[in-house]
Amino acid sequence: MNVKDIFTEMKDISELVLDLAYSSVFFDNDEIAEEVHELEERMGELNYKIKTIAMLAARTKEDAENISEILEVASASEDIANAAGDISNIIKRDFKIHPVILQALREAEEKIARVVIKNNSKLVGLKIKESELATATGEYIISIKRGKKRIYNPDKEAVLKEGDILLVRGTEEGEKLLRKICSGEIDEWRN
Amino acid sequence: MNVKDIFTEMKDISELVLDLAYSSVFFDNDEIAEEVHELEERMGELNYKIKTIAMLAARTKEDAENISEILEVASASEDIANAAGDISNIIKRDFKIHPVILQALREAEEKIARVVIKNNSKLVGLKIKESELATATGEYIISIKRGKKRIYNPDKEAVLKEGDILLVRGTEEGEKLLRKICSGEIDEWRN
Repeated sequence: MNVKDIFTEMKDISELVLDLAYSSVFFDNDEIAEEVHELEERMGELNYKIKTIAMLAARTKEDAENISEILEVASASEDIANAAGDISNIIKRDFKIHPVILQALREAEEKIARVVIKNNSKLVGLKIKESELATATGEYIISIKRGKKRIYNPDKEAVLKEGDILLVRGTEEGEKLLRKICSGEIDEWRN
Repeated sequence: MNVKDIFTEMKDISELVLDLAYSSVFFDNDEIAEEVHELEERMGELNYKIKTIAMLAARTKEDAENISEILEVASASEDIANAAGDISNIIKRDFKIHPVILQALREAEEKIARVVIKNNSKLVGLKIKESELATATGEYIISIKRGKKRIYNPDKEAVLKEGDILLVRGTEEGEKLLRKICSGEIDEWRN
């Protein structure tokens, strides 16, 4: 792995992990909280790796200065993952999530939701890319739960299947539209 | 201000500030970086306030336990704002942003863009809420630049005007669609 690959993975994880942290709290879901924890560990490893590679690569003062900004953003990405870990840790307690927290999550402009793809939905068999969901509904897929497996940050080439449980983030209107698409009530939504 | 209001503001800022931090880097924009810095300071104040109020409010062990989760999420929100500050700080240096950073931002699923509303766009005079932009294009408005003023996290009741420069986050396809709506090339986009 080179600096670019590591950095790109760190940037992607930093965005995914916050969505997951809030999702784990909103749905009081241990499985998602566990994934946050694993991503937090992965970030620690990546940050260590990128620092080592960078130090070995720097030959001149200019090299070192140039690469120091990458290391600063990488380190900020790790801080974000750690903050996400702190957020999802609160569900490990025995008492219920405080209503103030749930209310703030519910009032956010971009809301988290879970929607199941039914057998008569036109989404079945489409690649995520072909489905144009993000553009046509404003709903972004955070993860797909398929049987016992959960796919995080799914690839745009991944094919949607009947029974998939989508964890999504978007507006209230977008969620309503997505529910109709997933239930088969709406057949045409693409531009 | 009560605990709920402070907490909700902290949650909202934690989401806005990361978008702004990446935007400041992507456009090498000092003005946006300055806003990140101000939001970072605001978060420090809010975290201090919420801790003080919480301590004074707790009367029993149960009170204290219940409110401690709010303080943990609040503190994580401050960590996120600090990480965002670290990210936008890199543009204060004299040398150019490292290409690896720009590439990672360009390759992200959700991309940042700036789009100007032209005088013949059907958006002119619409409230953000009425415009249905987020749902119909997947593009979320991070801020609006109007003359010398910049409005962050604009209210859904805010009216869009000719010449507004929208800072948005969404897919590549969504951005193309939004550009056509803002230029007046597309008149109908709402569901």
